[in-house]
Amino acid sequence: MTRALTVSIDAMGGDAGPGIVVSALLKTILRQPDVQFILHGDEAQLQPLVARQPKLKSRVTIEHASGQVSMQDKPSHVLRRGRDTSMWHAIQSVKDGAADVAVSAGNTGALMAVSMFGLGIIEGISRPAIATIWPTLRGQTIVLDVGANVSATEEQLVDFAVMGEAFAHVIFGLARPKVGILNVGAEEQKGNDGVKGAAQILRHSNLPIDFHGFVEGDDIAKGTVDVVVTDGFTGNIALKTAEGTARLVSAYLRQALKRSLFSKLGAVIASGALHTLRRKLDPRTQNGGVFLGLNGIVVKCHGSADAVGFASAIDTAIDMARADINARIASDRSAIAAESAGARAGEL
Amino acid sequence: MTRALTVSIDAMGGDAGPGIVVSALLKTILRQPDVQFILHGDEAQLQPLVARQPKLKSRVTIEHASGQVSMQDKPSHVLRRGRDTSMWHAIQSVKDGAADVAVSAGNTGALMAVSMFGLGIIEGISRPAIATIWPTLRGQTIVLDVGANVSATEEQLVDFAVMGEAFAHVIFGLARPKVGILNVGAEEQKGNDGVKGAAQILRHSNLPIDFHGFVEGDDIAKGTVDVVVTDGFTGNIALKTAEGTARLVSAYLRQALKRSLFSKLGAVIASGALHTLRRKLDPRTQNGGVFLGLNGIVVKCHGSADAVGFASAIDTAIDMARADINARIASDRSAIAAESAGARAGEL
Repeated sequence: MTRALTVSIDAMGGDAGPGIVVSALLKTILRQPDVQFILHGDEAQLQPLVARQPKLKSRVTIEHASGQVSMQDKPSHVLRRGRDTSMWHAIQSVKDGAADVAVSAGNTGALMAVSMFGLGIIEGISRPAIATIWPTLRGQTIVLDVGANVSATEEQLVDFAVMGEAFAHVIFGLARPKVGILNVGAEEQKGNDGVKGAAQILRHSNLPIDFHGFVEGDDIAKGTVDVVVTDGFTGNIALKTAEGTARLVSAYLRQALKRSLFSKLGAVIASGALHTLRRKLDPRTQNGGVFLGLNGIVVKCHGSADAVGFASAIDTAIDMARADINARIASDRSAIAAESAGARAGEL
Repeated sequence: MTRALTVSIDAMGGDAGPGIVVSALLKTILRQPDVQFILHGDEAQLQPLVARQPKLKSRVTIEHASGQVSMQDKPSHVLRRGRDTSMWHAIQSVKDGAADVAVSAGNTGALMAVSMFGLGIIEGISRPAIATIWPTLRGQTIVLDVGANVSATEEQLVDFAVMGEAFAHVIFGLARPKVGILNVGAEEQKGNDGVKGAAQILRHSNLPIDFHGFVEGDDIAKGTVDVVVTDGFTGNIALKTAEGTARLVSAYLRQALKRSLFSKLGAVIASGALHTLRRKLDPRTQNGGVFLGLNGIVVKCHGSADAVGFASAIDTAIDMARADINARIASDRSAIAAESAGARAGEL
């Protein structure tokens, strides 16, 4: 008998504590009737929370972990001293084969370090990346890397394209996702050597992608492509700049609506619509990032996520576990490596 | 007798043609009674436009240029073949000393190439940068480089800090501007070698700045610092990502307000406030970028600017010409170079 699809959860990771994890599970178990859950964390806290919810009884196992990674802990410290933490145990469950995927709302740097140490990297991929799903005028776009690395070579950008393509295939159900490389202009001659070299490789690859070429910063929100490839330095700054801009525009809107009695009245009447807008822009409803390129799947939930956000991160994790994304990444990557080797031999 | 402060204008550069340049001048001459203007471009088009405005007669000189740089022209092509263009002539007036500053709404890459070729770089500065003024929750912040270069070494980032500090001094009147370097985290150990090296130099410099350390993408719109230093690749992508996000949020707002009769009614009543918001987010009201680091001042107006935007670019140009920003940049840069040399000698 094969075991059910199992999700390993770091129950102590987020800012809000294990309460929201249990609330998230109450949502998830209805949507996902065939999935089991392992909660890693302080048994004394978790046991009573779970015991109060009879529906969770047959679906959730608690595994005690005495330690906890804080948001301030350095990744190197956690690697040396963190073996008793709920984060470490959550990754270990995936490594041991007890679970198919791990979810944590904890410290991103520590989670990446523990995940790399525990799971290792897919053969042929040189560095893992963090992918995020970005809201656009047309729907959603995957952007990666948004912070696993502070630079990327052309080969690493190609790795990210392969991983983003597999992610778009799994999450959006696209047979041939449209992939673009983030750059300072759309013309072929623009940009640094990394993006130009990666574009050159992707233009001639036989990957199941529609390679669009370069895209610019404003193309992300336009939804010009399904996958935007960039290095983790630029991607992280673009992501946070967008968050800051959304907050700035919301603040301008609030100021403008408070300026006169008429505009205040209008705001009251339109309050339902303005509430919808606020929810759409609330970073807590975003589900954080997915770590790609590891021998195992890890989903990083936003540290300040509420139950809705955490439940959505669990859903993403289950979709990815079901679709076996890593087999696709490994086979695409080796196909590209073979093509590159062939092209080099052809030049001799 | 010394001549009046004179602005050299590429009258053929923007998308909208010379008409908006003349409309902009009608606004500017009232605010700037002591300034003269040279319009470079097709005399047959410019002469009748200016002749219709008697107020401009004593303030504007037209200098004929037969050619024109298009938005599609490659910088290298313009350098080889563009000597008869209005853009080239506009820069040449600054080089010859006939004008104190140049303004163009033309092709950015070509304008940078022609400006570097014509004016040269300030001694001690290795690369020019494009600086822009970014709206924030607290007011305005200068961000540079937003697109003159596709990478930056630590020394070049220090150059940008020096230039941004001088710009903040001139435009915002700050004695000790707060300067931050854009990075993926605020902690000292984060980021690539370039940003870490630049932070190290600035932390120990005696520049008249308040060096804040690293800032993240969302700190730009928060207004955490007065000057945000970054390489042109990241800066350009951050700027365009912010523009795209502002448009996305506006589109969400429009959708939300159209959803029900009540919210439509609210939107009608609050329409004045929503119009104010739209104007604040309209990229045409931004005045583009300032080229810093050249032996002469060049202001790049947004290609799609209207008369208000072009007039605001001219105002910025005049402020910079009056303040003699380049003397400050040159003296700050040589002070830092001397400090670095001293520090190196101290290590022997």
